[in-house]
Amino acid sequence: MNFADRLIAAVRAKQTPVLVGLDPRAESLPAGMLTAKDIVSTAKAYEVFCRGVIDVVAPLVPAVKPQAAFFEQLGPAGCVALGEVVRYAASKGLLVIMDGKRNDIGTTAQAYAEAYLGPGDLSPWGADALTVSPYLGEDSITPFLQTSKDHGAGIFVLVKTSNPGGGRFQDLVADDLPLYRHVAQYVEQLSAATLGENGYGIVGAVAGATYPQQLAELRAAMPHTWLLIPGYGAQGGTAADCAAAFDERGLGAVVNNSRGIIFAHQRDAYREKFGSARWQGAVEAATREMIDQLAAATSAGKLRS
Amino acid sequence: MNFADRLIAAVRAKQTPVLVGLDPRAESLPAGMLTAKDIVSTAKAYEVFCRGVIDVVAPLVPAVKPQAAFFEQLGPAGCVALGEVVRYAASKGLLVIMDGKRNDIGTTAQAYAEAYLGPGDLSPWGADALTVSPYLGEDSITPFLQTSKDHGAGIFVLVKTSNPGGGRFQDLVADDLPLYRHVAQYVEQLSAATLGENGYGIVGAVAGATYPQQLAELRAAMPHTWLLIPGYGAQGGTAADCAAAFDERGLGAVVNNSRGIIFAHQRDAYREKFGSARWQGAVEAATREMIDQLAAATSAGKLRS
Repeated sequence: MNFADRLIAAVRAKQTPVLVGLDPRAESLPAGMLTAKDIVSTAKAYEVFCRGVIDVVAPLVPAVKPQAAFFEQLGPAGCVALGEVVRYAASKGLLVIMDGKRNDIGTTAQAYAEAYLGPGDLSPWGADALTVSPYLGEDSITPFLQTSKDHGAGIFVLVKTSNPGGGRFQDLVADDLPLYRHVAQYVEQLSAATLGENGYGIVGAVAGATYPQQLAELRAAMPHTWLLIPGYGAQGGTAADCAAAFDERGLGAVVNNSRGIIFAHQRDAYREKFGSARWQGAVEAATREMIDQLAAATSAGKLRS
Repeated sequence: MNFADRLIAAVRAKQTPVLVGLDPRAESLPAGMLTAKDIVSTAKAYEVFCRGVIDVVAPLVPAVKPQAAFFEQLGPAGCVALGEVVRYAASKGLLVIMDGKRNDIGTTAQAYAEAYLGPGDLSPWGADALTVSPYLGEDSITPFLQTSKDHGAGIFVLVKTSNPGGGRFQDLVADDLPLYRHVAQYVEQLSAATLGENGYGIVGAVAGATYPQQLAELRAAMPHTWLLIPGYGAQGGTAADCAAAFDERGLGAVVNNSRGIIFAHQRDAYREKFGSARWQGAVEAATREMIDQLAAATSAGKLRS
């Protein structure tokens, strides 16, 4: 099944485009979860923590996005934990978008594709999608396409990122268009060539909630492309900032929140009510809050009717 | 110790800038090495094969470059093998440049830096350097700097890559300069700010042997920056193509060869003489051949005097 259609089915089933980012950090884990500071114990704690998050959010959201960096930070032991987290999320019915921002050329890109793309036994890591960086050009992106088609998987290509320094290269203007628009054109071309039954293709774009004007521009320039929107919450993006990223059906965008949900027990709004002891209650409350905010401020609210 | 000085010491000690790429592929392993096709057996075979390559090249070259993608292709078991390969290379006195082309922002980039950068116990993976993609801008590159400084490590930023499609975005012209020159300017600025005792900084640039004119241009535009040159051999780059990348001392560039060395037993020139049975002899012959070619055609020949 076409990845765009799989994603749309999941978003419709949960009636929300909220994506929960799994970014474990040792210093933010609920009190008592980290039993020792060595790397193997920390990796095990990441796995336990992420399973706990998944248990809470699986009934509420369509997908999770593990951040590979925080697992790789623990060396091979962290990679083993990452593999377990992906399997567990899939077993709970969640789509998994691996945030690896991988990129390379030719057969090396093909190796990354075969590593990550495809649920269950279709790939060793078992993810449904992977984030991909575009600097290396088309022969760094096309190798991901065939594996994606064969395995019902997809990719999200970095287009306009949420960070303050993202503009340094992405905003450089060539031939009257900023670089990110050149990347957007190419991504839209690939998506238009891989359409599912709902008018979207299997190549998505990463575009930050911190640049709402560019979200509107990209929605118009990429009518067949799903947007993955980071930068919500901790980075300053709001539900209203995301509104322009959706189509009139409430489709076309998933909005990620990592720290604001998984470490909600540390946020002022939840610390007193939940704290470390009831950290999963905080995760649930923060998830429901974000679902409601997006439903109120964007066309994603139509998913509920 | 400053990474540029560590690299220079290694290049001078071995009197060559040859970098051996560790890109294991199941279908190219010497006959009999892969005892079963399951993922754990393949990962073990990759480790055995790479140890065998390292045993041959450790006395001959300054550094190896493991390609993370081929290990990640085997899932967590491959990551465990990659960790072992890095440790083994370091134990044999080789510098290790991890080819991961990682990139992300802020604390996530910091996590990648802490994952990979620093030999021995300084990081979980124990590499001396990491390749980094620049699309996300300066706050995706600067987080790697402090860890590099603290751990005697370095990074190589993608500037002008060796693949045919690399030009799609890298050659777009903004403000009278192609994108790769904008990236080059930024990299040179970082390198000039982190100089060691030999006039080079700890932020290098990846620039392909398949674009010799651009190598000359980049050498001039980046006088304080080491170049990591892929594309030699299998991709078509020759020793003469690399000549302009070196300074008058024979420093300033390392030239990578992966398939042409590690799978030399399959090359026409070596198949009959060595074959699978004496594959390590083919690795040695191919390494020595490339060392001689670079010494003859570039200023790297001065390293021998």
